[in-house]
Amino acid sequence: MGSSASESRSAAENVVEESNPPEIVISVLNTPAPPPLWHELTWPIREGIFPCRKESSSLFRHVISVLCGLFPVLSWGKRYDGKTFRSDLMAGLTLASLGIPQSIGYASLAKLDPQYGLYTSVIPPLIYAVMGSSRELAIGPVAVVSLLLSSMLQKLADPRVDPESYRKLVFTSTFFAGIFQAAFGLFRLGFLVDFLSHAATVGFMGGAAIVISLQQLKGLLGIAHFTTKTDVVSVMEAVQNAIHQPWHPENVYLGCSFLIFLLITRFIGRRIKKLFWLPAIAPLISVILSTLLVFMTRADKHGVITIQHIKGGLNPSSAKLLQFTGQNVAPCAKVGLICAIIALTEAMAVGRSFASIKGYHLDGNKEMVAMGFMNIAGSLSSCYIATGSFSRTAVNCSAGCKTAVSNIVMAITVFAALELLTRLLYYTPVAILASIILSSLLGLIDIGEAYAIWEVDKVDFLTCLGAFIGVLFGSVEIGLLIAVAISFSRIIWNLIRPQVDILGRIQGTDIFCSIKQYPMAKQASGLLILRIDSSFLYFVNANMIKERIAKWVKEEQDEIEENPKERIKSVVIDMSNVKNIDTTGIAALEELHKKLDSLGIQLVMANPGWLVIHKMKLASLVDMIGEKWIFLTVGEAVEACPNAKRDNGNG
Amino acid sequence: MGSSASESRSAAENVVEESNPPEIVISVLNTPAPPPLWHELTWPIREGIFPCRKESSSLFRHVISVLCGLFPVLSWGKRYDGKTFRSDLMAGLTLASLGIPQSIGYASLAKLDPQYGLYTSVIPPLIYAVMGSSRELAIGPVAVVSLLLSSMLQKLADPRVDPESYRKLVFTSTFFAGIFQAAFGLFRLGFLVDFLSHAATVGFMGGAAIVISLQQLKGLLGIAHFTTKTDVVSVMEAVQNAIHQPWHPENVYLGCSFLIFLLITRFIGRRIKKLFWLPAIAPLISVILSTLLVFMTRADKHGVITIQHIKGGLNPSSAKLLQFTGQNVAPCAKVGLICAIIALTEAMAVGRSFASIKGYHLDGNKEMVAMGFMNIAGSLSSCYIATGSFSRTAVNCSAGCKTAVSNIVMAITVFAALELLTRLLYYTPVAILASIILSSLLGLIDIGEAYAIWEVDKVDFLTCLGAFIGVLFGSVEIGLLIAVAISFSRIIWNLIRPQVDILGRIQGTDIFCSIKQYPMAKQASGLLILRIDSSFLYFVNANMIKERIAKWVKEEQDEIEENPKERIKSVVIDMSNVKNIDTTGIAALEELHKKLDSLGIQLVMANPGWLVIHKMKLASLVDMIGEKWIFLTVGEAVEACPNAKRDNGNG
Repeated sequence: MGSSASESRSAAENVVEESNPPEIVISVLNTPAPPPLWHELTWPIREGIFPCRKESSSLFRHVISVLCGLFPVLSWGKRYDGKTFRSDLMAGLTLASLGIPQSIGYASLAKLDPQYGLYTSVIPPLIYAVMGSSRELAIGPVAVVSLLLSSMLQKLADPRVDPESYRKLVFTSTFFAGIFQAAFGLFRLGFLVDFLSHAATVGFMGGAAIVISLQQLKGLLGIAHFTTKTDVVSVMEAVQNAIHQPWHPENVYLGCSFLIFLLITRFIGRRIKKLFWLPAIAPLISVILSTLLVFMTRADKHGVITIQHIKGGLNPSSAKLLQFTGQNVAPCAKVGLICAIIALTEAMAVGRSFASIKGYHLDGNKEMVAMGFMNIAGSLSSCYIATGSFSRTAVNCSAGCKTAVSNIVMAITVFAALELLTRLLYYTPVAILASIILSSLLGLIDIGEAYAIWEVDKVDFLTCLGAFIGVLFGSVEIGLLIAVAISFSRIIWNLIRPQVDILGRIQGTDIFCSIKQYPMAKQASGLLILRIDSSFLYFVNANMIKERIAKWVKEEQDEIEENPKERIKSVVIDMSNVKNIDTTGIAALEELHKKLDSLGIQLVMANPGWLVIHKMKLASLVDMIGEKWIFLTVGEAVEACPNAKRDNGNG
Repeated sequence: MGSSASESRSAAENVVEESNPPEIVISVLNTPAPPPLWHELTWPIREGIFPCRKESSSLFRHVISVLCGLFPVLSWGKRYDGKTFRSDLMAGLTLASLGIPQSIGYASLAKLDPQYGLYTSVIPPLIYAVMGSSRELAIGPVAVVSLLLSSMLQKLADPRVDPESYRKLVFTSTFFAGIFQAAFGLFRLGFLVDFLSHAATVGFMGGAAIVISLQQLKGLLGIAHFTTKTDVVSVMEAVQNAIHQPWHPENVYLGCSFLIFLLITRFIGRRIKKLFWLPAIAPLISVILSTLLVFMTRADKHGVITIQHIKGGLNPSSAKLLQFTGQNVAPCAKVGLICAIIALTEAMAVGRSFASIKGYHLDGNKEMVAMGFMNIAGSLSSCYIATGSFSRTAVNCSAGCKTAVSNIVMAITVFAALELLTRLLYYTPVAILASIILSSLLGLIDIGEAYAIWEVDKVDFLTCLGAFIGVLFGSVEIGLLIAVAISFSRIIWNLIRPQVDILGRIQGTDIFCSIKQYPMAKQASGLLILRIDSSFLYFVNANMIKERIAKWVKEEQDEIEENPKERIKSVVIDMSNVKNIDTTGIAALEELHKKLDSLGIQLVMANPGWLVIHKMKLASLVDMIGEKWIFLTVGEAVEACPNAKRDNGNG
């Protein structure tokens, strides 16, 4: 290949010969044809259907491998032993002691009765344990999704006036969220989750945490009439109105004192790593203590609002509550989609970070399938949207979990609580739930990370700030929309205005660098070397690049008119970044060639990408420019230019 | 700079020393800080406001230069002489002889009375002549924009039932189109015109030409009741219905015989370049001959439909017809925006191709400002949207025009015709106008170009076909929407799934190439060299790239398990394509580093872009990876890897 290619390029070779050994002059034009378009388009799908290596797969082994992919429990279950179980049992029990009060609190955030939070901590963790591939992820209801669900659905039905219709909407949205999540995984659309960037997530979570805290004022202050809106202004107005009415400060005293207790245990748990279990069981201790306190002092008669009745027993079926006809189907599907993406974003971020700490790989698409099936099953058994919780996953990991069995232990414990303990929660004050949620929100507000984003990338900080302010003063949806709009605007700006850099040679080498980035690089005289810093030359940027190059050539010539000792005779374009081109790009290169030709300037190309070479050949652009003016490296191209020989010493 | 940089990198230098002279080891980490973000963002605006070089500009010269930019006539007017005027006079008269019948025809396509087409050939060309920078562009109404305008506006008001309201909509849309065009130019949003790719334009124009031809069946067959829809199916149904009613074949005989005459002159004009004027004046000859024929035979009494009354005199003011209140403002703005983009696309394509033939540069943003003001002025003086016409510009150029004065000559001639000749057009048959439009449409259907697009780029062909079929069977808007959707889908696909190539060394050199593209390149043992083929590492692709690299490392290690003589000790990532990074990208690199570290593999980077280096330093990623593992070239990076020394001879 190499030798036949070099024969066909004898003209160019003669010029280069003096500087390089001849065998390296391989032709950029004689590479094999690139893989066809369908190959590239179907690659991710084939990859998904045939994950195992083809050479070693019989049908039986293929089925086994697909099953193992779908149910990772089949792989790790074989190696499971008693010692691992002891670790998982302890982790699961710790998890349950944190999960039960949190679940009840999040249910109230989602405007559902307390038992629905507990239901959501039973079925989804069981499904995830057999289908999910993360070992640490703790599944259950989370604060942000609970808020998102209630803030969007209570526009359609008021949970206080018509709880039955509201529940129908919740389960239908959960079903849609599950369908979307499973579909993302099956069709390998995992990239959709990436559309919410890291910075957007930081801003969004911070805003959501503040909004959720404000919602807790209802429980903490014992306000009866609260706003259904989530923005700061509406909530502050509602609080101001409530203050002018008679209220019971006992709720505040109770809530605040236990909040202080929770924060102190949290602080101790952070400082002394061995006491990690203290903040994990502190919520349960608070619930027990406060319930006893209220029960003994009968404070519920004096204005302390309590949970009162919780329906016990296992999750009832909710299959008949799903609605697939009527005017609410489209809004539920939309809510499902937004919640699916937010839930996946949180679960992925948590799962991936713990997987990378433990040094294993988490397949995003498989995780999405597992989450999808777990939410579909949840929607049929009175659960609302569950996902991986950050705070509980951290506790799970600290408590020494080894496999997803800790989720099973937690689910069984919650189930036992539903069967046996719901009556004991009658006197639990609502203010305690508010303080438990408040104490768990601190982890969501990450000022340090926001500052780090500001330091590194100003546009990302703008995205973060946009999401934060949007959530705080608009709504959760507006925050998301602002974040996505800002992050995509930057990408489009980059696409339509790629850099075109002037290159210079670093003295004594064959290395060509941007003269702006490396001021020691020297431009050759009579020759302009440009590099297109875009990975494609498509309709969005081709004309712009062409015009910029034409303008620079003109400027350089104008300068030389003032100092006419050497005019530009060649323009070398380093195309090594350009991997693809479309017909608009081809036309732009053609026009550029013609324009330079009319000025008596030779267009020389270095290292165009595979597809670019292929398409230039098909469009006869190679013949137009001339085969001998297309090179593998900028060095060869420069050597071949008529008046640029041997001036790399004095630039 | 070079020497201080090399001092600070002594660790890396020691390793490289043996292969390269020490003075070339410049540090990629010690480059000056890149220009701040606001500099890059405001650059196009500053460039627009201060087009001239700063060092030589006093206030007076600055004003002069801005004026010259806005009114190019001030530059070329000074050098204008009698000889140039003779050329322009001839070109302008030829242009008028083609323009008058075409303008009347296009007005009927726009569902307006004939005189509005003539009005549109008076004011806009005069404005363009003083503000535009193209020398050849012939301004006036064009077929596609006329069709677009009528197809979108007749949904809001029926031109046959209520012509007054319809005209109000037309002028309001024209005003908005002008505002949008001027705004695009002033805010340097010229790239918006590029969003309609070359392939999309070919498909769109082809579809529009067929749709316009079908509309001409009304005039050619003398059908009284025609459909207001533009798609093929509706038009065919309308024609079928009309055939069952009494009709007058005289219209068809007349129209077809003159169509044949026009096509023959067109053919002769193409073959014999000296007779270019023959197809240019053939429409005028047809109009005169057919009018005389009808006048003498009184054929209008026997079913031949004629134009009848045309209101003479100069353009009346239409300022009072503009509507800025009521429900139709938003639809008019939308129609204005679509027409503005289509009109600019056509004018830019025509203007740029003739400018490149004549070897001068056309500033897209200035052209847009000129077009915008010309349409705003037009909307106040009873003109509808004008733009540069392809067929008339070609005639103008062949007729030897030298400057925009030919547009002035044409405008004055059309004005004279409006004053003196409108009464003579009473007997002109409508079928002749249809045949003139039909003959001018052939240039819009470019099957050869569509085939060339198919040959070079299949996705582009899909865009072209989508636009064509969308216009033909849906509507003009659907066609545009399909084309834009297909072309942007490809870009998004490329963004989210960039290539990551495995590189190999070309034997005996320091050149590293993709082993797929250059099969002669050999991979080094114990070392994986990868190149990220994306110009940025942002949230949309960072995780995907990280996971693909992690997967490859795993695959390579699995292979080596089978053949365990050399395991991978380093992964070299060639970042030379990556010009920018966001915080998600930084986090992805950090995770990749941690993951490789946990496998005992060193991450080595070569030639990251300017901003990438800067942000990696700010995010402390450089310290984490280690300064000594970041190099300027892949060659240096490979040399520094522990077990890769001196194996470039045997791969």
